Amino acid sequence: MAATLYLIPTPISDNSAIDAVLPPNNMEVINSLDYFIVENIRSARRFLSKVGYSRRIDDAEFVELNEHTTNIGDVAKMVAPIIAGRSAGVISEAGVPAVADPGQAVVALCHSHNIRIVPLVGPSSILMAVMASGLSGQSFAFNGYLPVKEPDCGRAIKRLESRAISEHQSQVMIEAPYRNIRLAEAILRHCQPETRLAIACDISSPAEYIKMQSIAEWRRVQLPDIQKRPTIFIIGRL
Amino acid sequence: MAATLYLIPTPISDNSAIDAVLPPNNMEVINSLDYFIVENIRSARRFLSKVGYSRRIDDAEFVELNEHTTNIGDVAKMVAPIIAGRSAGVISEAGVPAVADPGQAVVALCHSHNIRIVPLVGPSSILMAVMASGLSGQSFAFNGYLPVKEPDCGRAIKRLESRAISEHQSQVMIEAPYRNIRLAEAILRHCQPETRLAIACDISSPAEYIKMQSIAEWRRVQLPDIQKRPTIFIIGRL
Repeated sequence: MAATLYLIPTPISDNSAIDAVLPPNNMEVINSLDYFIVENIRSARRFLSKVGYSRRIDDAEFVELNEHTTNIGDVAKMVAPIIAGRSAGVISEAGVPAVADPGQAVVALCHSHNIRIVPLVGPSSILMAVMASGLSGQSFAFNGYLPVKEPDCGRAIKRLESRAISEHQSQVMIEAPYRNIRLAEAILRHCQPETRLAIACDISSPAEYIKMQSIAEWRRVQLPDIQKRPTIFIIGRL
Repeated sequence: MAATLYLIPTPISDNSAIDAVLPPNNMEVINSLDYFIVENIRSARRFLSKVGYSRRIDDAEFVELNEHTTNIGDVAKMVAPIIAGRSAGVISEAGVPAVADPGQAVVALCHSHNIRIVPLVGPSSILMAVMASGLSGQSFAFNGYLPVKEPDCGRAIKRLESRAISEHQSQVMIEAPYRNIRLAEAILRHCQPETRLAIACDISSPAEYIKMQSIAEWRRVQLPDIQKRPTIFIIGRL
C-alpha cells in the first residue's frame, strides 16, 4: 500500500488546551501512525502522550530532523521507510511543521518520490498574527529572522518597510524570544511614524496579546512585556 | 463588559468534515455570539447550521462585509455595537477571515478602539500549501492575484521568480478558479526549467491534490485537472 506523509501540527503554547487548537480528526491520523520524523523527540513524545496516543509510545519509532541533521543523506534515511510503504508523521517543536522549521527537506524528498503529502490543520502563529493584525492579508510576506547586529538590522527593517509601502505587502518577522525587546526597539527607531506595527505575543494561549497601532503611537507608550515570550512582529500600512 | 472580536474560520471545502478542520472549542466561541460580520450571509448561516449553532439562527444578527461594502462608514457602523460592548464573530466565505478577504477593515478599526481581537484556528489553503509544498517555509510571500493579461502577467511571474531565487523566498499565488489552467500555463511558459512549482488543489477536502516538481518536469506531463477547483500555486527553489 502506498504510504503517506502527514504534517502534524502541535499546540504553540504548553498552556493551550488541545481542544482549542487541534481538530479531533488529527488524533485519528496520529493513532494510525507508528513512525514520526520530529524536531525534538522529547517534545514529540510529550505531545503524543498529551493527545492520548492509542498505541504504546515505546513501540513507535522517532527520528530527529533539526538543525543538527541537515545533510541530505540523513534525510534520505528518514524517507527510505516511507518509500518502502510505511506512513509517517512530521511533528515540529511547536505549531505547524515545515514552516519556519527544518521539516521542509523531508517534504521535498517525498515529493520527488511521488509520495502523497497531507497537511493537517493546526495553529500557526504567523497566520494567526496576520489574521488578527488588521494589516493587509491580501499580500503578506514572512521573512523569518532579521540580522541581529546594526547596521544590518536597521537596513533590513527599512528595506521591509519600503516594500510594505511600495507593494502594500505586510511584512512579518520573528526573533529569538530573548531578543524581542531589542527587535521592537529597532523597529520603533527605524520605521516612519505613520507605519503600522502589529505585535502578537503568546498566540493561542491564555496569555495572548495582540495589538496594532502606528509607530508614532507605539513610541508614546511603554512596550508590552514580550521579552522571552514567542512573538510575531508585522509592519504595514493601512 | 468589554467586547471581543473573534475571527472564525470555516471549512475551505463543502466536502470536508467539520471534525477534520476545526477545533471543538471553536463551537463554544460561536455559541457565545449572536452578532456576525460575514462575507456572505447565506454561507454564514449554512455554516452555523452545519456546526450545530446552539441558538436560533434567526435571533442572530448578520451584517455583510465584502467587496460591495468597503467604505469606511459601513465598517464603522458594523463596529459600533462592538464598541458598545457586544462581542462579534467575523466569518469569511471559506477558510480563515482577514487573509485574502475583506475582513481586515473591521479588525483594523477594532484595534483603533482597543477592542480585543482573538483569531481562532482553522484551515488556511495558503498556509497548508506552503507546509506541503516542500519549498522554503523559512521565507515565503503570498501575492494574491496576478494581472490577468499579457504582457503584465508574464512580467509579474518573472518578477516573483527572480525574487524567489535572489531572496530564497517562496512565492504564493492564487487565481480565480476558472482561470487556473491559464495561470499554470503562463507559469510553465515564463519560468526557468529548474524553478520548482507546487500546485495544491482542493486542500483539506477528500479530492486534495498536492504536487511539487520542477518546471521542466511539469512541462513533460499533462497538467492535473485544476480548472474551476480552488488552487494555490507556489514557485521557489530548493
